[in-house]
Amino acid sequence: MSQELRAVEWTGDALALIDQTALPHRTETLRVRDVDGLVDAIQRLVVRGAPAIGAAGAYGVALALLQAEREHWDGERLRAGIARIRAARPTAVNLMVCVDRVAARLDDGLDAVLAEADAVQREDVEANRAMGVHGADWLIERVAEDRPLRLLTHCNTGALATAGWGTALGVIRELHARGLVELVHADETRPLLQGSRLTAWELVQEGIPHRVQADGAAAGTILRGEVDAAIVGADRIAANGDTANKVGTVGIALACADAGIPFLVAAPTTTVDLATPDGSAIHIELRGENEVLEWGGVRTAPAESRGHNPAFDVTPGRLVTGLVTERGVLEVSAGELPGERLA
Amino acid sequence: MSQELRAVEWTGDALALIDQTALPHRTETLRVRDVDGLVDAIQRLVVRGAPAIGAAGAYGVALALLQAEREHWDGERLRAGIARIRAARPTAVNLMVCVDRVAARLDDGLDAVLAEADAVQREDVEANRAMGVHGADWLIERVAEDRPLRLLTHCNTGALATAGWGTALGVIRELHARGLVELVHADETRPLLQGSRLTAWELVQEGIPHRVQADGAAAGTILRGEVDAAIVGADRIAANGDTANKVGTVGIALACADAGIPFLVAAPTTTVDLATPDGSAIHIELRGENEVLEWGGVRTAPAESRGHNPAFDVTPGRLVTGLVTERGVLEVSAGELPGERLA
Repeated sequence: MSQELRAVEWTGDALALIDQTALPHRTETLRVRDVDGLVDAIQRLVVRGAPAIGAAGAYGVALALLQAEREHWDGERLRAGIARIRAARPTAVNLMVCVDRVAARLDDGLDAVLAEADAVQREDVEANRAMGVHGADWLIERVAEDRPLRLLTHCNTGALATAGWGTALGVIRELHARGLVELVHADETRPLLQGSRLTAWELVQEGIPHRVQADGAAAGTILRGEVDAAIVGADRIAANGDTANKVGTVGIALACADAGIPFLVAAPTTTVDLATPDGSAIHIELRGENEVLEWGGVRTAPAESRGHNPAFDVTPGRLVTGLVTERGVLEVSAGELPGERLA
Repeated sequence: MSQELRAVEWTGDALALIDQTALPHRTETLRVRDVDGLVDAIQRLVVRGAPAIGAAGAYGVALALLQAEREHWDGERLRAGIARIRAARPTAVNLMVCVDRVAARLDDGLDAVLAEADAVQREDVEANRAMGVHGADWLIERVAEDRPLRLLTHCNTGALATAGWGTALGVIRELHARGLVELVHADETRPLLQGSRLTAWELVQEGIPHRVQADGAAAGTILRGEVDAAIVGADRIAANGDTANKVGTVGIALACADAGIPFLVAAPTTTVDLATPDGSAIHIELRGENEVLEWGGVRTAPAESRGHNPAFDVTPGRLVTGLVTERGVLEVSAGELPGERLA
């Protein structure tokens, strides 16, 4: 990519979001100017990926403040608007952390709020770049020093999912920059195909060799020995290392454990929620059942059937070989628990 | 269902196949009258499911014989036609076994061939009914004697996939007939949605409570404790119990092992291939990549992306808690290997 993609960009009076529901066929930008528009964009997955939602929430505080001035809201209404942004999706902790961080500057005025949101965005990109280096170094040392790697990833964790560069996909981009990626197995990621639509699109932009496969193919691909390591992102990581991520993740972790290959989670330390002791305390978002029963608005299942559509699952920390953060790699399954190392 | 569904039915001079590519929206019957038509129907998955393909292949020998009489084929051409039916799909052993069994009667004429094909079909239904009883008895004894069960299944293994009744879905139907099914989790089964389109349709017909979920949701559903046992079919079972089945199966087996719940495979003994020592010798069909890159003929992945589309995966026998056959349940992971018990 000649210029780094920005999924979330402040334009002075609005938030410009790449509409991720339209990719890969159309690259459209949605300009959001108020709280309702931002909440809707987050819930419809115009913007998605825990760090990208965090950045959008950070600038959302500025949007709410501008709207409050425009529409003469009192403080209570402003706080309620910010609370709605904060609660737009329940599982990723980044949204809550970033909104709270920026909202703490409200009394200092718009410039201070925007400076804090800019810092959130800048620090996320810096964290992603650092994760890329740490993750790549770890994989080269632990898996193979002398040949390109065959990697598997799930959902989208690239520039689209973050403030820039990417978490798990950032590690893959760093390895590719070093000439050390042979092939990326990209799970399509049902029901909304973030892997097929978004990750594959980013991999095409970067010229990284890849194959899209059905999510169900991942475990077999791993057990047949076609993968050196799997690397995914995270929406919330508990103190004991239990990791909530896109539905389908825990099956990949089980296959890696069975095959004896590393299962890495790449996430900034802001994704670690020390207030959550373990995965059982993480709220798993249940999305509308039509996402799984329909395709492009056309019913695929029988009219009488019900659907079950959890957006995330929880991978036990015992299955997380390494947690790649901007500070380095924690070997969680070997006992380096985030609650002890990052507290 | 008031009348038992027949996915494959001989009509005197043609083979009537329920077109499984049109379900659940349209119930259409395709009448096949020659070898080309049958090979095409098997490859396009008009008829699918290892036992149903076996029954179609059995009657295919009769179709080939009638075509040979009509078109004045010599013996060599007849044998070549039958060989094409036998090789229409590579993974399921039932097709080869059933074609060979019926072809052995060719010298005795059409009536003998049809009688043998009828026997194949009749014996498959009988085997399915027996599997249903054995599997249901085993689950009640091992899992819960006093409450309805929550079961998970993958792909379609019902009346549509067999000569009638079903293998894994036959066990579920038997449990339902005894009032012992609380809920069936039906994986949608990408890329061709046999679970969402076909299994859900059969479950609706039978009035069995069910929820369709993305394949990636299966492991999380199991690890959250929402499933008492998983039960699937098989396309080929090696002597050591390694089992080829629809892609996505081995991930379910890994999750069941981790959760400590039974993972059952239901298949007639004709699916056990004693000539195959282990799973590494099973040919896994790679289907066209557009099945995973497109949806209803519309591209979903970027134009530049490649796909990877193995139709099956291999579950190691060590993960198969029980193999339900018409003769009873073999506890494979506990050492009851098909190669020793069924030889």
